[in-house]
Amino acid sequence: MAPAPEAVRKTIEAYITAVTTGTVDEILALYAPGATVEDPVGSGVRDTEESIREFYGVVAGMKQTGEIYTIRIAGSSAAFHFRITTEAGDQKVQITPIDVMTFDDDAKITSMRAFWGQEDMETL
Amino acid sequence: MAPAPEAVRKTIEAYITAVTTGTVDEILALYAPGATVEDPVGSGVRDTEESIREFYGVVAGMKQTGEIYTIRIAGSSAAFHFRITTEAGDQKVQITPIDVMTFDDDAKITSMRAFWGQEDMETL
Repeated sequence: MAPAPEAVRKTIEAYITAVTTGTVDEILALYAPGATVEDPVGSGVRDTEESIREFYGVVAGMKQTGEIYTIRIAGSSAAFHFRITTEAGDQKVQITPIDVMTFDDDAKITSMRAFWGQEDMETL
Repeated sequence: MAPAPEAVRKTIEAYITAVTTGTVDEILALYAPGATVEDPVGSGVRDTEESIREFYGVVAGMKQTGEIYTIRIAGSSAAFHFRITTEAGDQKVQITPIDVMTFDDDAKITSMRAFWGQEDMETL
């Protein structure tokens, strides 16, 4: 059975909060065991907890803000458009991907795929 | 080799034009042989030309307008957010999905998956 749309929405909101202001453990707690991460799409799939930890470890220490623009939910899958802005010295780098996630019955993330290219990353 | 981002963008723009104002043949011409369509995600995959023709045949005769809000391209895949507004008598029905497509080297569509739920369809 697919999770309730409201549960999926809560997980996505918690994900953006965790990615921008949380720890790697807080991010990983939103994932189901055996989950996969592909960011950006085409760059190869991370399918071990170690490799997913490594991926989020890069951003977890940075000063970031985030904003969800829109979420589309279809059963146990969702696509959402958002921005993450990272402060790097006196510059800000903003990225605005569309992520696609799948979820288990408890609305834990079973896969994440991020659609973006170089043109979706800008220095402010 | 992945198609150029500009070629992917052109196919997506041609797709929205064809879906809103074109014929089923014009829509199908943007697809590669053997392509699949899942709309909405979770409703089952159409994997024959006949079943894809049937799907687009439903909307091809309707009076529609469309607008692409944003496109994210990652190699040979893309996600895009758009609206399609259909006139049905004196009402208008607006749907605002996020579609994910994959493309072959010639930027023909090899798969389409549409993320939306009932809450993304509104009567104007």
